[in-house]
Amino acid sequence: MPHIQLPDDVPGIRSLVMYRPDTGKPLYDLAQVLLRGDSPLSTAERELIATYVSARNHCNFCTQSHEAAARALFGDEREVVDFVLNEYETAPVSDKMKALLTIAGRVQTDARTVSDADVTRAREHGATDRDIHDTVLIAATFCMFNRYVDGLATLSPTDSAVYEPMGERLAQQGYALPNPAPQL
Amino acid sequence: MPHIQLPDDVPGIRSLVMYRPDTGKPLYDLAQVLLRGDSPLSTAERELIATYVSARNHCNFCTQSHEAAARALFGDEREVVDFVLNEYETAPVSDKMKALLTIAGRVQTDARTVSDADVTRAREHGATDRDIHDTVLIAATFCMFNRYVDGLATLSPTDSAVYEPMGERLAQQGYALPNPAPQL
Repeated sequence: MPHIQLPDDVPGIRSLVMYRPDTGKPLYDLAQVLLRGDSPLSTAERELIATYVSARNHCNFCTQSHEAAARALFGDEREVVDFVLNEYETAPVSDKMKALLTIAGRVQTDARTVSDADVTRAREHGATDRDIHDTVLIAATFCMFNRYVDGLATLSPTDSAVYEPMGERLAQQGYALPNPAPQL
Repeated sequence: MPHIQLPDDVPGIRSLVMYRPDTGKPLYDLAQVLLRGDSPLSTAERELIATYVSARNHCNFCTQSHEAAARALFGDEREVVDFVLNEYETAPVSDKMKALLTIAGRVQTDARTVSDADVTRAREHGATDRDIHDTVLIAATFCMFNRYVDGLATLSPTDSAVYEPMGERLAQQGYALPNPAPQL
């Protein structure tokens, strides 16, 4: 049961932006520009970072929904998502991506621990300022979304089949506010 | 030294929104609507929650800047900020505010630990759904801002005098993007 009165049968973040659309709008605007806007990271890579951070925060709704989006975006290479969720250092992703996932993990735990050595490693594998910036902001943003969704105990289905159409929609349409967004 | 090339001599979040204004805009829009828009919580109370969470995350820039804003907004009652930063259960704030600070602390640590008992306690002291919602979203939002600012090692002055004019500006003008925002 959610801690506050939210629209029935609407899961996770969607129930919250329907509850308060005026805060929902900048939250969805942020997700759209950060995960779908201009970046040296592919949309699939950005969804992978979002999934990885959400899994570390044990946020079922965000992990499953962004995992589904990442699988849809990776297409034939979707097995990479399983690898990253288990042990990313052996995953079939670039060394740059591994270094960026290390930075994302540090941001999730305690952002002050991102070290010069972490950043140097990423740069040695080709990361630019924008790769590093976008990784840190994606990780920080999901530390927010995960807490918002779980702190209010929103509806969070456990069945992964529920998330498949959600992942397809996020992959194809990105982050558009649920519309209409009724005021409760 | 910041981990990426940011505008010289610009501290904290301001250097980051100047670096990437397209993500800066929804971030400032969120801060403005959440901390200055409609809420059952006063602007001073909202800045207090932001300060409390930032202190728990050991984010010097966010703690000092929002502490300064909270002091400016509390005016003659500014000593409440010291109490809250030290031991809020004995602070001269309402029982409702103490219960909401407990919830904010749980969101900062692990949002899944916000319990029915925490929410019941807040309701018994008069908290509404919107009080609870806004508290959780403010706490979650500062878990993001703190990580963004510290994960990129932005400039973070230690001298509290630097933050006084910043706090006055935040108290009086709210969250407006630094303008002009040069593209680097």
